Amino acid sequence: MKYIKNLQIAYIGGGSNGWAWKLMSDLALEEQLSGTIKLYDIDYEAACNNQIIGNNLNKQKGVKSRWKYEAVETLKDTLIGADFIIISILPGTFKDMDSDINLPQKYGIYQSVGDTTGPGGLIRGLRSIPMFIDIAKSISSYSPKAWVINYTNPMALCVRTLYVTFPNIKAFGCCHEVFSTQSLLIDMLRDLCDIDGIKREDIKINVLGINHFTWIDHATYQDIDLMPLYSKFVKKYFKKGFERVGKGSWKDSYFNSAERVKFDLFKRYGLIAAASDRHLAEFFPGQWYLKDAKIIKSWKFHLTPVDWRIKLGEELARKSMKLISGKETFNIKPSGEEGVKQIKALLGLGDLITNVNLPNQGQLKDIPDDSIVETNAVFRKDYIRPVLSGFLPYELNNLVVRNIYNQETILKAVLNKDKKLAFAAFVNDSLVGISLGKAKNLFEEMLQATKEYLPEWGKH
Amino acid sequence: MKYIKNLQIAYIGGGSNGWAWKLMSDLALEEQLSGTIKLYDIDYEAACNNQIIGNNLNKQKGVKSRWKYEAVETLKDTLIGADFIIISILPGTFKDMDSDINLPQKYGIYQSVGDTTGPGGLIRGLRSIPMFIDIAKSISSYSPKAWVINYTNPMALCVRTLYVTFPNIKAFGCCHEVFSTQSLLIDMLRDLCDIDGIKREDIKINVLGINHFTWIDHATYQDIDLMPLYSKFVKKYFKKGFERVGKGSWKDSYFNSAERVKFDLFKRYGLIAAASDRHLAEFFPGQWYLKDAKIIKSWKFHLTPVDWRIKLGEELARKSMKLISGKETFNIKPSGEEGVKQIKALLGLGDLITNVNLPNQGQLKDIPDDSIVETNAVFRKDYIRPVLSGFLPYELNNLVVRNIYNQETILKAVLNKDKKLAFAAFVNDSLVGISLGKAKNLFEEMLQATKEYLPEWGKH
Amino acid sequence: MKYIKNLQIAYIGGGSNGWAWKLMSDLALEEQLSGTIKLYDIDYEAACNNQIIGNNLNKQKGVKSRWKYEAVETLKDTLIGADFIIISILPGTFKDMDSDINLPQKYGIYQSVGDTTGPGGLIRGLRSIPMFIDIAKSISSYSPKAWVINYTNPMALCVRTLYVTFPNIKAFGCCHEVFSTQSLLIDMLRDLCDIDGIKREDIKINVLGINHFTWIDHATYQDIDLMPLYSKFVKKYFKKGFERVGKGSWKDSYFNSAERVKFDLFKRYGLIAAASDRHLAEFFPGQWYLKDAKIIKSWKFHLTPVDWRIKLGEELARKSMKLISGKETFNIKPSGEEGVKQIKALLGLGDLITNVNLPNQGQLKDIPDDSIVETNAVFRKDYIRPVLSGFLPYELNNLVVRNIYNQETILKAVLNKDKKLAFAAFVNDSLVGISLGKAKNLFEEMLQATKEYLPEWGKH
Amino acid sequence: MKYIKNLQIAYIGGGSNGWAWKLMSDLALEEQLSGTIKLYDIDYEAACNNQIIGNNLNKQKGVKSRWKYEAVETLKDTLIGADFIIISILPGTFKDMDSDINLPQKYGIYQSVGDTTGPGGLIRGLRSIPMFIDIAKSISSYSPKAWVINYTNPMALCVRTLYVTFPNIKAFGCCHEVFSTQSLLIDMLRDLCDIDGIKREDIKINVLGINHFTWIDHATYQDIDLMPLYSKFVKKYFKKGFERVGKGSWKDSYFNSAERVKFDLFKRYGLIAAASDRHLAEFFPGQWYLKDAKIIKSWKFHLTPVDWRIKLGEELARKSMKLISGKETFNIKPSGEEGVKQIKALLGLGDLITNVNLPNQGQLKDIPDDSIVETNAVFRKDYIRPVLSGFLPYELNNLVVRNIYNQETILKAVLNKDKKLAFAAFVNDSLVGISLGKAKNLFEEMLQATKEYLPEWGKH
Repeated sequence: MKYIKNLQIAYIGGGSNGWAWKLMSDLALEEQLSGTIKLYDIDYEAACNNQIIGNNLNKQKGVKSRWKYEAVETLKDTLIGADFIIISILPGTFKDMDSDINLPQKYGIYQSVGDTTGPGGLIRGLRSIPMFIDIAKSISSYSPKAWVINYTNPMALCVRTLYVTFPNIKAFGCCHEVFSTQSLLIDMLRDLCDIDGIKREDIKINVLGINHFTWIDHATYQDIDLMPLYSKFVKKYFKKGFERVGKGSWKDSYFNSAERVKFDLFKRYGLIAAASDRHLAEFFPGQWYLKDAKIIKSWKFHLTPVDWRIKLGEELARKSMKLISGKETFNIKPSGEEGVKQIKALLGLGDLITNVNLPNQGQLKDIPDDSIVETNAVFRKDYIRPVLSGFLPYELNNLVVRNIYNQETILKAVLNKDKKLAFAAFVNDSLVGISLGKAKNLFEEMLQATKEYLPEWGKH
Repeated sequence: MKYIKNLQIAYIGGGSNGWAWKLMSDLALEEQLSGTIKLYDIDYEAACNNQIIGNNLNKQKGVKSRWKYEAVETLKDTLIGADFIIISILPGTFKDMDSDINLPQKYGIYQSVGDTTGPGGLIRGLRSIPMFIDIAKSISSYSPKAWVINYTNPMALCVRTLYVTFPNIKAFGCCHEVFSTQSLLIDMLRDLCDIDGIKREDIKINVLGINHFTWIDHATYQDIDLMPLYSKFVKKYFKKGFERVGKGSWKDSYFNSAERVKFDLFKRYGLIAAASDRHLAEFFPGQWYLKDAKIIKSWKFHLTPVDWRIKLGEELARKSMKLISGKETFNIKPSGEEGVKQIKALLGLGDLITNVNLPNQGQLKDIPDDSIVETNAVFRKDYIRPVLSGFLPYELNNLVVRNIYNQETILKAVLNKDKKLAFAAFVNDSLVGISLGKAKNLFEEMLQATKEYLPEWGKH
Repeated sequence: MKYIKNLQIAYIGGGSNGWAWKLMSDLALEEQLSGTIKLYDIDYEAACNNQIIGNNLNKQKGVKSRWKYEAVETLKDTLIGADFIIISILPGTFKDMDSDINLPQKYGIYQSVGDTTGPGGLIRGLRSIPMFIDIAKSISSYSPKAWVINYTNPMALCVRTLYVTFPNIKAFGCCHEVFSTQSLLIDMLRDLCDIDGIKREDIKINVLGINHFTWIDHATYQDIDLMPLYSKFVKKYFKKGFERVGKGSWKDSYFNSAERVKFDLFKRYGLIAAASDRHLAEFFPGQWYLKDAKIIKSWKFHLTPVDWRIKLGEELARKSMKLISGKETFNIKPSGEEGVKQIKALLGLGDLITNVNLPNQGQLKDIPDDSIVETNAVFRKDYIRPVLSGFLPYELNNLVVRNIYNQETILKAVLNKDKKLAFAAFVNDSLVGISLGKAKNLFEEMLQATKEYLPEWGKH
Repeated sequence: MKYIKNLQIAYIGGGSNGWAWKLMSDLALEEQLSGTIKLYDIDYEAACNNQIIGNNLNKQKGVKSRWKYEAVETLKDTLIGADFIIISILPGTFKDMDSDINLPQKYGIYQSVGDTTGPGGLIRGLRSIPMFIDIAKSISSYSPKAWVINYTNPMALCVRTLYVTFPNIKAFGCCHEVFSTQSLLIDMLRDLCDIDGIKREDIKINVLGINHFTWIDHATYQDIDLMPLYSKFVKKYFKKGFERVGKGSWKDSYFNSAERVKFDLFKRYGLIAAASDRHLAEFFPGQWYLKDAKIIKSWKFHLTPVDWRIKLGEELARKSMKLISGKETFNIKPSGEEGVKQIKALLGLGDLITNVNLPNQGQLKDIPDDSIVETNAVFRKDYIRPVLSGFLPYELNNLVVRNIYNQETILKAVLNKDKKLAFAAFVNDSLVGISLGKAKNLFEEMLQATKEYLPEWGKH
């Protein structure tokens, strides 16, 4: 077996108590790799905590490889020598997220996530772009040949900003939303065909769309075509939803749903929507799935409350303390994420075909070149090439293109510090179905709330 | 001087008391051409009336050329031998137009015209497509080499249907909406620069967009750049609007406006919108310019009442009778339309550059190939070639593309008799900002009202 | 393990003593599949012989699956019910091939193969196109949903003809030429790095180009980048060539070479040419590698004599008799071809990434849409999607495009029975560096020799 | 009538005794314009001579406008303040042109012009590119908003270099070769239809191709379609050629021909080639029209001898002296060139449609974006937009694309100082039908002869 040693990974946002821990777990379980992870975070102390937690793993049983974790104070020192760079940051704070969600709510605009599209997603975009310009510039200077994996939302805008700033960057964006739809198809095979024990990777899908608004038009398991099966599945469960029992139940978590939005979209467009209902709903007019609490409940999904996020954050901070002090032991288990698999494939340790966010070079037809799309790609040694995914039907492509143009307008607005442009995108968002006057007021309030991230804008 | 004799013109919709009379007038004033006009109309009697009126012109003073008018009972006989075919029909009746406008109004959706976009435009599209399929098939059989000029709305869908049905058709669509914006620029030059006596053709513009949602990004008169002047003009008149005096006043006619929507769009997008405000307003969310009577009034334009159209129709019918009986004399004067100029250019009697609706072959960037766009084109002997017009900024192109995809979806819906597709376009229209349930009800009501034109649809 | 039974394979050209036997061998060794192979051949007796040989295999030791072979008299009966269709025919006879090669030679034009490009390739194209039109029409009528694998040359023109005739055909073209370049890279790793025992599939390559003129711009083995290694390899062996010992020696077979042409092309263009030297040489001006016997020898490759082909054919016919009579036993062994692997992947028995000839949908940039290009593709259950392969440098793309346009011209010539068009392609071929007058004479002689395949052409 | 005063024109190559005098003549006859022409030349003295000649015109009878001519010593001072920049230089000397022509001739390669394609054209390209990089940089610095008109050959490479160096440049390339084909069509109308007195502008043509290899697929005069007439014309004159009498006779001037190459191309491709035969012949294999003196004579056109050019140059220098001294009077007459008409149109003094060399933005289909193509364009106030010209048939497009890719390769070779690239283009030229070894020798000799213009190349 081939072993790669002395790998250098730079982790931007390395103080995280969520994604960073998942990576630690996956790396610890990967016997073919070992090396160093440099942790960079604007909260340096958090990075130092993760340094301790990460290094402690080496003493733990069941660990298959040794990794050195190192909190680093500057982005430059983090990046120099990196083979891989992971970007997983929160653009702003939970307080900013709170205004992204709650200001629109005052105007009757509900957002179930608010990090991708809708007024919240667009404003978060305005905030993220300057950060990603800085990151891209640093990568261009200090590690231009490293592979860059982004997990940050708004995914498409973040990755697009990286490429606009440094066109030779080797960046791609990863998201697990599609995986959950593969899991749903496994549930379906169990429910309709009594087949059990299927691994997610064995659900073969053709992926096309943009992040969080991704679609499947071809799905198979071994020699079974899953598309007609899904049609039956939708018929069976459309009315009540697919209500899992226990932990998977839609009532069990803000992240769960009974897949009713997904089923409705299948009836409407004939394709399998490949993201959670909370993300999907935000891409349609507010009147559809997010009109008010009652409607949302009837579709059996949830708004994600920011105060719950805050509480969760505090809980994880306490857990971090316990892990450092040894009061609690790190639970090593596969995260379900694909980052480490992708790294292995890029190092030459076996082909991987998976969905990924990349600039469009023709992999998705009828979509502008260079916009960030999500399709399958082949991963090999120092090589990612998208698989031609075909095209979406007009009636769906329309919605995708609308978001892409809005993203481009937001990007141009930031590059030119042009409020008028940002507002043009804002009022063109599907969720903003209010009058021009109200929209203007909401926009101004939201800009005000996030102004510290847009320091030069006051002048225009 | 070159004279072309024995020209054969087929006029589909030749019983009209509006457009047909304009053509008669323009032909009578054109000394280089003469020949025969065959009038075809589903109301054969109306065509016969126009035969009399047209032939009477030959006896009138001031007429510069002789034309023979001939009412014809079948489309086939009308088309055989035609050099030019003019299509100017009302797809349906005023009663249909009434339901296009008034059913949406019950749901709070106001449309100032309702013939291009919005629920009315889309349903009118459903109705028109089968008619244009029939026309295209007949042209393919009986006069495949004739030039075809369409005046019917929804312009883009009608012309698109012609090309989809008979790809080698030599068709283009004409509309005078852009001309009125040239006239506004003449008004501007008078108002700001005291220049008088400018002819419309001397206002040179670069046109880009789709019919009734057309834009100007370059406008000159002699050596004067009109774009910065227009910026001043908008500043001067934005608040109150450009209120002409007398016949041109926005209060004088349902078709007039104080150009406030146009000025608002310039402030928003930086380009000159080149259609009347009543058309432009329909391309934006209902909350913007068409929310309710008060808002519409504040923007200083009008809804076009269908009962007014009916009354006007009756008036013209009475006038027709008087013209036939000789109680009234036909008033020969230039119509301001360009049809005859285009015909002359296509016969080799001088180059013409003007705006026209044609399948996109690259004349408008970032717009799908083959969709019907409006840009300038060069007209010569048996030759129309579009001029490269460039591209619209993202934030505007988004709105254009949205309409194009909606049109394609409507077309596909008719070709497949697929209600689901038609509804997908319907709910994606900018004006339809209502809940899915209400939208479904409205859609069904409107389909019901127009069902006789969609005979096979009941089965699906 | 998953087993697929009752598979139906139609083999057009099923009387072959070469390709058909390879398939028999590979199927016999594939335990997951079983079913029926219908053998169709214009030489029905040959198909009957192969029926006996194929069915005899079932009694042989070492066979892992059972297949029923059935000679069929009509194409229709062969196709009905087929899941897969294999096309592997000789378009014409060895006598035709003789005139393809020897007539040009009279004019000083040497061709090392003469089945793809050059005067021979183009005339063979003229001959093949009507055959492939017939095949495509039959597939459209009798088995429109079957997967179609073509092995016949000229590959690109044959596959293109299938798609032009029946646009919904699910056809692709397979060729082993690229595999031999992977083997060369294995040789290189042994020679330069002392690495042994590498499997062909573990040499990962990015493939781009057209059949027999295919290129590699990215090649890796595990974590080793093979491009800089190849540069060293070329330096080491350019002068003398890479002269293998024994069976692989360039002197041992008309099909072998010392790779000098390939090395010269690397020095010239910086990419690895991925076909045998005898194919590559034909894509360049005759003065380069094919000027005369002496020059060809100095480049250490061979012309393929047609009389040798004829002798080999006779030998195989004798062998066939022996196999039927039982005097000789069929030698079951892996053929090195990928047909069966592809069939398995298309049945859902595991992903496959390999190079394949398909209409260009963007997988190869700067190449006209729909022309047949060779790149990698992902094979899955009822699914082939090309991998984006990037683009060739201008100086190489030029040569590719030249061939593609020549192919299109030949195709149009056949469709229109237009000699003038065929001649325009003929004189534009790289190998035809003779005067217009001589070219005309050669063209007429070659047409005359192949006239029975172009029955209608005399009229024009 | 509108008058534009104080126009500033910069003339790079302003010491010329050919093109500069034509401009002086045309400006003197143009009553609507007046201003200053700054003359820049690396031969400053020549510019000073033209300053005198130009200013003398103001005293001459028949002059309709006053212009001030000013020789300027630096490019910078020439450009500052310019409204229009004219570039009309000889890249190198007649001695360089001599080696462009005569070195290939040693290898049996005849070139009738040698300034566009062929070995001479490519080497001239190598020489010109650095000059045009310098010019573009200066324009970018000192007059970025000026319109730039290039007359220098190789036209496409020169204009392409301007755009690659300064993408916002407002440059276009003008050439009179197409005009001469319009004149031929006038001759044809006289010959076949007895129509006389036609003005060149009234021959309406659709132009498509690249400079000196331009084609016409649609030509009309008033209501007459000239394409079928041309077919008759070719039949009538193909064998003997169209031998004009007197000054127009093909024997009268190296620049004249009997149009036999043009007629042969029409028979071959069905389109009217729109350049003189001496240019057209160079785009085909040397064996076709340029094999040797005898063949050239049989096609009834000429090689252009460089020693004749040298003699002509000396003659014009003597004429210049006489004009300065007053011994000879400047003969003011329309030059037949369009520069002044284009300037007028760009100033807003009337629309102009004419053929022009511009980066491809879709005006010519199936040709790479941004390559320099020649098609019609509309000229207006500060506005040039190409007219969509359609596409060339495959068999012709192939030859156009071949040249475009060769040009791009030459450009890349200069930008990277990469001899290997330059050689790749060189051996891919249609006229270079010699062995690799001889081609290498010729290439090295030609590079040696022009080495002073490629100072850094020795290092590579």
